[in-house]
Amino acid sequence: MLASELAKELGCDYLGPGDPEIIGVAPIDEATSSDVAFVHNPVYLKRLSSTSAGLVVLMDKNIPEGRNFAVTISDNPHRSMAQAVDLLYPEKMIEPGIHPSAVVDPTVKIGKNVFIGARAYIGAECVVGDGSIIGEGVVLSDNIHIGPGCRLYPNITVYSGTWLGEGCIIHAGAVLGSDGFGFAATEDGVLKIRQVGKLVIEQDVEIGANSTVDRGSFSETRIGKGTKIDNLVQVAHNCKIGEFCFIASQTGLAGSTVIGDRVMVGGQVGFAGHQKIGDGSLIFAKSGIASDVPPGSKYFGIPAKESNIVHREHAYISRLQKLFRRVRTLEKLLEDK
Amino acid sequence: MLASELAKELGCDYLGPGDPEIIGVAPIDEATSSDVAFVHNPVYLKRLSSTSAGLVVLMDKNIPEGRNFAVTISDNPHRSMAQAVDLLYPEKMIEPGIHPSAVVDPTVKIGKNVFIGARAYIGAECVVGDGSIIGEGVVLSDNIHIGPGCRLYPNITVYSGTWLGEGCIIHAGAVLGSDGFGFAATEDGVLKIRQVGKLVIEQDVEIGANSTVDRGSFSETRIGKGTKIDNLVQVAHNCKIGEFCFIASQTGLAGSTVIGDRVMVGGQVGFAGHQKIGDGSLIFAKSGIASDVPPGSKYFGIPAKESNIVHREHAYISRLQKLFRRVRTLEKLLEDK
Amino acid sequence: MLASELAKELGCDYLGPGDPEIIGVAPIDEATSSDVAFVHNPVYLKRLSSTSAGLVVLMDKNIPEGRNFAVTISDNPHRSMAQAVDLLYPEKMIEPGIHPSAVVDPTVKIGKNVFIGARAYIGAECVVGDGSIIGEGVVLSDNIHIGPGCRLYPNITVYSGTWLGEGCIIHAGAVLGSDGFGFAATEDGVLKIRQVGKLVIEQDVEIGANSTVDRGSFSETRIGKGTKIDNLVQVAHNCKIGEFCFIASQTGLAGSTVIGDRVMVGGQVGFAGHQKIGDGSLIFAKSGIASDVPPGSKYFGIPAKESNIVHREHAYISRLQKLFRRVRTLEKLLEDK
Repeated sequence: MLASELAKELGCDYLGPGDPEIIGVAPIDEATSSDVAFVHNPVYLKRLSSTSAGLVVLMDKNIPEGRNFAVTISDNPHRSMAQAVDLLYPEKMIEPGIHPSAVVDPTVKIGKNVFIGARAYIGAECVVGDGSIIGEGVVLSDNIHIGPGCRLYPNITVYSGTWLGEGCIIHAGAVLGSDGFGFAATEDGVLKIRQVGKLVIEQDVEIGANSTVDRGSFSETRIGKGTKIDNLVQVAHNCKIGEFCFIASQTGLAGSTVIGDRVMVGGQVGFAGHQKIGDGSLIFAKSGIASDVPPGSKYFGIPAKESNIVHREHAYISRLQKLFRRVRTLEKLLEDK
Repeated sequence: MLASELAKELGCDYLGPGDPEIIGVAPIDEATSSDVAFVHNPVYLKRLSSTSAGLVVLMDKNIPEGRNFAVTISDNPHRSMAQAVDLLYPEKMIEPGIHPSAVVDPTVKIGKNVFIGARAYIGAECVVGDGSIIGEGVVLSDNIHIGPGCRLYPNITVYSGTWLGEGCIIHAGAVLGSDGFGFAATEDGVLKIRQVGKLVIEQDVEIGANSTVDRGSFSETRIGKGTKIDNLVQVAHNCKIGEFCFIASQTGLAGSTVIGDRVMVGGQVGFAGHQKIGDGSLIFAKSGIASDVPPGSKYFGIPAKESNIVHREHAYISRLQKLFRRVRTLEKLLEDK
Repeated sequence: MLASELAKELGCDYLGPGDPEIIGVAPIDEATSSDVAFVHNPVYLKRLSSTSAGLVVLMDKNIPEGRNFAVTISDNPHRSMAQAVDLLYPEKMIEPGIHPSAVVDPTVKIGKNVFIGARAYIGAECVVGDGSIIGEGVVLSDNIHIGPGCRLYPNITVYSGTWLGEGCIIHAGAVLGSDGFGFAATEDGVLKIRQVGKLVIEQDVEIGANSTVDRGSFSETRIGKGTKIDNLVQVAHNCKIGEFCFIASQTGLAGSTVIGDRVMVGGQVGFAGHQKIGDGSLIFAKSGIASDVPPGSKYFGIPAKESNIVHREHAYISRLQKLFRRVRTLEKLLEDK
């Protein structure tokens, strides 16, 4: 596709110079003359001086003087990148159909244009919505609702009673609706509290590979609309996660924690149970949340506090050696008197 | 079931008032007039003022004055909760039988009333005890012993030579008996130390979804009777975990660590290799254990120490800004003299 | 095998006394008279006084006076241990062949002496090299290259476009080539950036159970020759890991991080995105890397710094209570004046 045609498809002004053929998307420092690169963060502008990209998409205010590449202006280069990937790498269509090696219970209700892969298993009373893709080796136990337009990658397991809304993407190896970690201590030892609640995953949720989301103990676990969860994340029983959150890899939520809307969570964060995390808050990677977090807060540390407080504490800690010396000096001064 | 009947089944005194029909278990703040709720922690007593629960189970000393709900007295409401779930949500029976799509080696010894799900694979010389349930897509390599009354959820993989006792529950996607991380550095690079030891899991152990437990290198890895392990936990080669421990999600044990009996471990804890953790100790979430832990200790931090020491250190750190100012004031005072 | 024969096979000098029959490898404190034990770390020498091992392999300088066991001298007891395991526990041969329940697309190119297990699925245009073993329940989507001599344990999922070199070992439940966590914020919500890059795994790489390695977003993710990755590790999109690295369990790399050669990473380490980790550096367990790391460094902490700086800071923190008292004493002294 010519650079100018791509710009038009992206709804962007094309400035040139020239009009190279563009066949791929690439990072600024790996791009060739037939690649388009994107600058959505001014930090990367300095890399433009040495790029070989044929076309660069950037914001109006960032157009460099004297350049070896054509330029297109976008008000949101990150969005344009997502669109360019769709245009230049058309998604392979998956032909609907049920593989003969799949095992599908006769009570299952299957929508139109559904794909069910080899060796998938779909148990009693499940529903699979129109256009959904059930990957190879997926196990849907029973009484599970998969909304329309969902994609379940291979070797996922979904426990009984789980409900997925429209357009969810679940990556390989994830486990949805597993038992929460609930036990009662008794005189004789330990009694399992059977986990009988539901897991509800609202529309447009994405869940990463090998992540685990437990069902409610008897209430429900819920993941809100548009929330994106990375690989190897743990969501325990009875958690409620709001809408349009981002939760990075290896983060864990203990039981009954409630996360608001548009919360951003870094990797390897741990939430203690029964915490409330306010809307729009930001939790930095590796934090351990042991208290409620007010809306709009930025938290960091173990246990986590307002991140500017923690950064200040770290600065003081790095100056402790000098402080010990200063106190020693004062002591000597006073001894001498 | 009438509230008074439920109380009787739970072995509890029924105080009323009234005798509502109870059909479900629910959290205090979600319960309706046909639900029973439980107060096992006095912290939640204040929520009773606004509950809509039809029945509340609590301890004798916690009975509230003037109330809109019936009350039942339990000496252990947590145990009563586990019992009530069993009564109100009867478990669905799984009809024994071997699904025709399962692949079972002719040398496998299968007990009575065993269920083997679709597409399960059971290799040579395995034993499956009476009443055990092998979920869809489970792979048992070979020479594996599954005790009676075990439940293996779907898509689990068990490596050769693993032994499970009676009544174990293993959740979906778990991997049991995988190779430990053992390599020898040589002049030419790296040599794999083939992992040939066993994994022994004693009776009544529960292991969470997508957790991984490595076999011994040539010795054995062992998980003691009644121990409960949450999702996404890693247990490395040659670890020995005692009886009736609780290990929360995303915790990891490096090689050859020995954990005593009745040890409680929070989420995302890391144990360095070759540590000894004493009976009855408690490790708080996110700790990094880099030393032995005496019996009955409470440890926290990275590296972990007695938690009261760590909490005191944190308190001092939060006062560092003031300390720096106090020292500056002293310095000025002395400069002026 | 006689102890002297084993020593000969290991290329080691045999000192005796006696010449016991050796049938197994065992840890020093579990070994019996028919086991060989290894001392590759002088720390374990003191355990020799109470060992029951029939044979001990150790370095020349560590030979104990007066002993109850035969001794063999090795310049690298760790390497000798790897060799002894191979000799005393011969690996079970897996008979090549394709299980009739496997589903293999007619376009797949399969080498000589390949094993494909029950219920494996191999999609269009895949290549499986000579002598490779594809475990039960493995799903290879399409356009995947598996080099010769690879072993894929059961229930692994490999996404489209992944490339594995010769001799790789991938453990059960791992997911290779999954989508990176890439989204663009727009006025209307969130737009998925389709992940269309590759994952390249070079020769002799080992990846642990239930680990996840994402494909590149449009560039590639790459794991270098001879690198070993433990269980439950996350490698995000566009990361480049060098050769002969060791990455311990539950560590996570955020997007586009570059790790050099021969880097050692402890367990539960987190790397922020876009960091550069120099050759030969060592990252201690539980660290959070938020900056570049120079070659040959030892880093620790959250955020991580040179480990000797962090250890010194910890020492000062443990003395804070005394420092607060000393400052109080100074203040009193000056108040009195």
